[in-house]
Amino acid sequence: MLSKSRSQFIRSLHQKKFRQEHGQFLVEGAKSVQEVLASDFQVEQVLATEAFYKENVLGADHQRTPVEIVSADELTRIGTLESNNAALAVVRTSENRPLLAEPHEIVLILDDIRDPGNLGTILRIADWYGITKVICSETTAEVYNPKVISASKGSFTRVRWFYTDLVGYLQQKNAQMPVYGAFLGGQNVHTLPFDPAGGYLIMGNEANGIRSELHSFVTQQITIPRFGEAESLNVSIATAVILDNWRRGFIA
Amino acid sequence: MLSKSRSQFIRSLHQKKFRQEHGQFLVEGAKSVQEVLASDFQVEQVLATEAFYKENVLGADHQRTPVEIVSADELTRIGTLESNNAALAVVRTSENRPLLAEPHEIVLILDDIRDPGNLGTILRIADWYGITKVICSETTAEVYNPKVISASKGSFTRVRWFYTDLVGYLQQKNAQMPVYGAFLGGQNVHTLPFDPAGGYLIMGNEANGIRSELHSFVTQQITIPRFGEAESLNVSIATAVILDNWRRGFIA
Repeated sequence: MLSKSRSQFIRSLHQKKFRQEHGQFLVEGAKSVQEVLASDFQVEQVLATEAFYKENVLGADHQRTPVEIVSADELTRIGTLESNNAALAVVRTSENRPLLAEPHEIVLILDDIRDPGNLGTILRIADWYGITKVICSETTAEVYNPKVISASKGSFTRVRWFYTDLVGYLQQKNAQMPVYGAFLGGQNVHTLPFDPAGGYLIMGNEANGIRSELHSFVTQQITIPRFGEAESLNVSIATAVILDNWRRGFIA
Repeated sequence: MLSKSRSQFIRSLHQKKFRQEHGQFLVEGAKSVQEVLASDFQVEQVLATEAFYKENVLGADHQRTPVEIVSADELTRIGTLESNNAALAVVRTSENRPLLAEPHEIVLILDDIRDPGNLGTILRIADWYGITKVICSETTAEVYNPKVISASKGSFTRVRWFYTDLVGYLQQKNAQMPVYGAFLGGQNVHTLPFDPAGGYLIMGNEANGIRSELHSFVTQQITIPRFGEAESLNVSIATAVILDNWRRGFIA
């Protein structure tokens, strides 16, 4: 049985304000907890049901991470998921460190992606397409939001992020590398020869696209061709389709 | 001011049971309401804020569809959206009529897609890629669920669906047309020559993929190549990437 003060602390981490104050965030559900335990993240505590605890060795890790056994009801009550019969981890946030592109790398730049579900899905897509660096505008959803962590399906442990002013970032970027930006009326991604040596891809806000201050940094405007009538694609869908087109020339 | 009985009726349409009983469903938000008014769907009533009503001619349609002016608070209270300051339409469901593939057409088959958000997003993707027929297993989410309608961003007015037993459907399908199915370990969609004359694409359940009873109908197993570490892609993302690869040979 979890103490009242501990329950209150964990619930406080539903809110950005307290995540920032304490430098901790929540990871929920069997798969995500297993992945965070196997990652470089510092896990402060795991709350697990007895069944989950018995079935999972929790890596060599269970020797050093404190584990408390709780009921599925308790887990669900203190967490953000609709139901959770496995585990919840309290994890230390990582430092916001600059991430620069290496040659032969694709770096994703997110300008004002507001929806946490979209951000989480984009981290998962980045992870699928072998992209490990995501640069986020300061207005992009906070990555430690439980909805982001949950939608990323564990990919938050493999993809790194850097929140920064994008104008400043793009001014200092690797000048040799192209910057692709998703626009209406750009070049067709089915016929464009993407640079096989990598570069940057900027994806813009769900409703407004890429902010005008960033347009001058884009060296190639690109568009996904449309064959029907829908006005647009969701930003996470568009990110996947563009990365899939870029990666075609690479060996999986 | 909406009558109490009318409010109750509209709220009852949040539930599948009452949507089926009354043969009516809800369409919410400015864009979706405009699109449904411009479509073949029979709109029984529109509830609109005064601002929305004044700014929108609501097509020639506003002469025959009863419109009632309500406050944004009322709209939000009776609807399912977090907020709605525009409009809500009560719309008649359409008959579940068989949809057969014509030659030179791509038809999408959904086997047990459970998440309403995924189904709505898939309708929007189908609409983008010019696919107008979606065949759904009876276990697939109900298309009239407000979350499906909302996620489809109006595409529910242009894409048609048919809920049926997929085994029976596939037994009677056009025998000349290929059936692609998304599997782990299928042929790489980057190198596979998709049939430019169209065919069927089966997408399976979020957790379990395509049911084994359907495997024998698949003439070509396909896979999206992975370049990183994520275990899988969301089913709506995978649908978009596969359709994008199929459509490459076509003129947008």
